[in-house]
Amino acid sequence: MLRFEIVHQSKKSRARVGRIHTTHGIIETPGFVPVATNGSLKALTSEHINALDIDLMFCNTYHLMLHPGADVVAAAGGLHIFMQRSRPLITDSGGFQVFSLAYGGVHQELKSSGTKKNEGSVKKITEQGVLFRSYRDGALIMLTPESSVAAQKNLGADIIIPLDELPPYHVEKSSLRKSLDRTHRWEKRSLDEHLKNPGYQSMYAVIHGGIDPLLRTASCNYLSSLPFDGFAIGGSLGKNRQEMIEMLTVLMPQLCSDKPNHLLGIADLPSLQQAIPLGIDTFDSSHPTKCARHGLLYTTQGNITIERGRYKQDFSPIDSTCDCYVCITHSRAYLHHLFKAHELTAYTLATIHNVRFMVNLMKRYRQAILDNTI
Amino acid sequence: MLRFEIVHQSKKSRARVGRIHTTHGIIETPGFVPVATNGSLKALTSEHINALDIDLMFCNTYHLMLHPGADVVAAAGGLHIFMQRSRPLITDSGGFQVFSLAYGGVHQELKSSGTKKNEGSVKKITEQGVLFRSYRDGALIMLTPESSVAAQKNLGADIIIPLDELPPYHVEKSSLRKSLDRTHRWEKRSLDEHLKNPGYQSMYAVIHGGIDPLLRTASCNYLSSLPFDGFAIGGSLGKNRQEMIEMLTVLMPQLCSDKPNHLLGIADLPSLQQAIPLGIDTFDSSHPTKCARHGLLYTTQGNITIERGRYKQDFSPIDSTCDCYVCITHSRAYLHHLFKAHELTAYTLATIHNVRFMVNLMKRYRQAILDNTI
Repeated sequence: MLRFEIVHQSKKSRARVGRIHTTHGIIETPGFVPVATNGSLKALTSEHINALDIDLMFCNTYHLMLHPGADVVAAAGGLHIFMQRSRPLITDSGGFQVFSLAYGGVHQELKSSGTKKNEGSVKKITEQGVLFRSYRDGALIMLTPESSVAAQKNLGADIIIPLDELPPYHVEKSSLRKSLDRTHRWEKRSLDEHLKNPGYQSMYAVIHGGIDPLLRTASCNYLSSLPFDGFAIGGSLGKNRQEMIEMLTVLMPQLCSDKPNHLLGIADLPSLQQAIPLGIDTFDSSHPTKCARHGLLYTTQGNITIERGRYKQDFSPIDSTCDCYVCITHSRAYLHHLFKAHELTAYTLATIHNVRFMVNLMKRYRQAILDNTI
Repeated sequence: MLRFEIVHQSKKSRARVGRIHTTHGIIETPGFVPVATNGSLKALTSEHINALDIDLMFCNTYHLMLHPGADVVAAAGGLHIFMQRSRPLITDSGGFQVFSLAYGGVHQELKSSGTKKNEGSVKKITEQGVLFRSYRDGALIMLTPESSVAAQKNLGADIIIPLDELPPYHVEKSSLRKSLDRTHRWEKRSLDEHLKNPGYQSMYAVIHGGIDPLLRTASCNYLSSLPFDGFAIGGSLGKNRQEMIEMLTVLMPQLCSDKPNHLLGIADLPSLQQAIPLGIDTFDSSHPTKCARHGLLYTTQGNITIERGRYKQDFSPIDSTCDCYVCITHSRAYLHHLFKAHELTAYTLATIHNVRFMVNLMKRYRQAILDNTI
């Protein structure tokens, strides 16, 4: 099980530098957590991943459950061995994908006013769990707190997540309350199942309550009373960054500060800047790797769209301050050419750079906290 | 300029082991030459390429001329620096792509009986050169022996190729004779242009004459009389492997044996087996890397189609005798999963393996020749 060490609490804000000690190594916080949905960080090999010095990586139980199956991963010796990653991993419950495939994200929802995006995928939500149809082969699958934990035991990530219900953004307050109560019961069942055989795994609670501050408080209070190893913040936090930050500003002081916490699915650069001072420890997002595959490269001087004509004869590195293999080896002109020629290598090189940028950015944030400038 | 050293002439066949010494290093022969069309071996980084120990790599002048432009590559310091490859490179004249885009390959031609595949792309063939339309932006481009050599000087590969005309497979004998004469004039002009400033570059003649043994002999005789550094074998050699091997059996004894030779565009496994005893030194082909991206993996026990269900729980390496990073690190089950999940990493790992398989296969061929068993 994990042990959380607070290295330094900033004198200027709630930001802190920490270390999460796990069986597979140490996670420095605040830390960025790349998303390797299918057990592969898109376009990278395990060698690249090792070279990038990524402390924690996120894999999706939903996808791995549908292919190759959590049992196959278990037969391989667990996810660390299957994907050849020796350092810490975190998996989610699978619930987020089941519900988001049904409702879509906040953005799609705001357009559709909560009408289901894919009526067919979630068949039934009962106290027992959620019945859904596999997008791969149409098979009906029942995801319960117990089956999600069983799958996550098979996968064997260092940090696992209890099953929760994700109500759509457009939900009546009474429905949100009902949903939260059910989520709490599901999280408790998940924890009970986990604690039958915790092994080296730790479980983070997921704080819910949507955009209602009182329900968020109720969620903090209830989940803090249970022996979870840390807290993830999930569900809809508002319809834009400002609302999210306002909610986190209210929420964070209510979380037990001696346990690690994680903000689910958010790690864009402006959100990091505003959320780190609130005391968030880890952030997962597929945004930096998705941007990379679209040729949007992060630099300390701002983002660059590498396909633009101005980079055709720019023989300087993507970012002269970056220590990644791509910046040391290749020019912007070469990356520009590879993107223009639709070469697969472009996606690999851009991903290496953006992930390394994030790793270095978080190092700078940690130093700024140590210096009490954040 | 290159220096060719024959290390061993087999006592059993025309097969020989050699070393082509170039400014950028030694090419061991017989050798496999992977194709990095756009200055990138698809899905691999320069680090992977270095680790694979590839002696010679093939880039396509046609593609690089259209993007980013040979002048841009020259401004970068040449292709070796642009793509960060320190070891030998070979480029073609650009003619093959211009003509094959017009006529299609032998396979398409056999179906269409020589009607042009893309009427619009080759606008005009004159004594001066070939006028074609860029597939990128529709611009009209005149490719002449002199402009092809100028582009290849800009690219700076160790071995370069003179401009030739590629007549379609279905061509009248009188037209083939005319085409061969023009090709010879173009090759002579290319050589003259090259010799104005050879630098470290060497030029291979391209033997033509289609499927007519007498014209092939005439081509050998004429091109052998000029100071080329080696010989490539180009043009249509027949409609199947048997016809190609019959032609090479007649042709190879007519080539000056103290210069290196190269078979253009052929390196499938059965062709290698039959062509190496005829004394071919190097073989380029995009076949092994294309197969890799389609999940067809080479092993010493035969090819495997990794997406087949039987590999889902096969935790053994692709080939237990292979020393590549993928075989040392990952299982067939992981590769199977990545292909099924359409992960980009699948293409990278499969390519690493197939290229390394080819490198090792050629090592075994060289040893067999040294042992006089081929």
